Amino acid sequence: MIKLTAFKSVPPFAQGLVRDLRVRWALEEVGIPYEEELLGQGDGDAPAYRAIEDDGFTLFESGAIVLRIAEQSEALMPRDEAGRSKTVQWMFAALNSVEPAIQNLFAVDVFYVEEAWAKARRPGAEAFVKLKLAPLTKRLQTREYLEDRFTAGDLMMVTVLRNLRHTDLVSGDPALSAYVARCEARPAFQRALKAQLAAFEREAVAA
Amino acid sequence: MIKLTAFKSVPPFAQGLVRDLRVRWALEEVGIPYEEELLGQGDGDAPAYRAIEDDGFTLFESGAIVLRIAEQSEALMPRDEAGRSKTVQWMFAALNSVEPAIQNLFAVDVFYVEEAWAKARRPGAEAFVKLKLAPLTKRLQTREYLEDRFTAGDLMMVTVLRNLRHTDLVSGDPALSAYVARCEARPAFQRALKAQLAAFEREAVAA
Repeated sequence: MIKLTAFKSVPPFAQGLVRDLRVRWALEEVGIPYEEELLGQGDGDAPAYRAIEDDGFTLFESGAIVLRIAEQSEALMPRDEAGRSKTVQWMFAALNSVEPAIQNLFAVDVFYVEEAWAKARRPGAEAFVKLKLAPLTKRLQTREYLEDRFTAGDLMMVTVLRNLRHTDLVSGDPALSAYVARCEARPAFQRALKAQLAAFEREAVAA
Repeated sequence: MIKLTAFKSVPPFAQGLVRDLRVRWALEEVGIPYEEELLGQGDGDAPAYRAIEDDGFTLFESGAIVLRIAEQSEALMPRDEAGRSKTVQWMFAALNSVEPAIQNLFAVDVFYVEEAWAKARRPGAEAFVKLKLAPLTKRLQTREYLEDRFTAGDLMMVTVLRNLRHTDLVSGDPALSAYVARCEARPAFQRALKAQLAAFEREAVAA
């Protein structure tokens, strides 16, 4: 049985955004059951919240875990060489090109919102996010998914774009907001989100 | 024949750091010949400088390209399931956990060095890099590579760490600097670096 490690609780701004959501979603799409181990923020090593145990070894990094799951089922990745490479391409695009820009804006807006430098930095940080979103918007104006069908690349991109929910950069963009809504409407996403939030709710009741 | 797309010229601070170095290095490790197409900064779509053409399709994102190359040879990735997953794990760790922190410091130190907000931001940006480097330092104090042998995970991590060459964060850390030097001493890396720089030198002579 796969064991997913996640946080017992996180601040409200992070609920529904923690990276184990990606892994839960992938497991739900593929139909692999899992058990969860919930850790306090101070428990264990830093990457523990992204760890998964499977076949006797532990893996961290949500990208690597989702790719491993995707390789086990056509539900998340086509079997042909080109379809497979394109899925991996969009996963890296989400995590290495789009997410750093969005994390940067998120930090300015959430973690450092009271700092004078963050106010001065914000226009540049927002402009950089827009630069990264522009080709996605263009592409998604004429397609439902990044390629011809839903893949792990969309799964990753949507979890990245969700980190802009405190802005209108996605909600104010018809192509991007329709894309995110389309992917979030998937039953597997709904189950994954519910599972992440349920853990936080149990902890809040227990506290 | 694989076609690698790269820039004709970049500013000195970026020479030896442009992401096509990763792809050149991977191709050299595996022993796959390639031809290069050099583009001006304004040519084509933004991701073109990371594109590769192979079997009739174009791929961008250096992470996806290197993984595709790694899958073709044991030189960059063990064949067993656990070794494969660990390689992919370190690739994502390099690109999604370590690189964003380093990019942020690089931006503060290079692109925005004259801005008042960058001076105020620098201590926090540096502290975040140190937080990301600490587990790597610990791990590399007792090992030559991130796992038992050189893999595409090391290739990616080293190209990320090279973006700290303007600081003493790697050069002042015995474990990390020995690790980077060990990987950079590989003949495949030396050939890749020489090839990237040679293109810039040809352009400088022609200009």
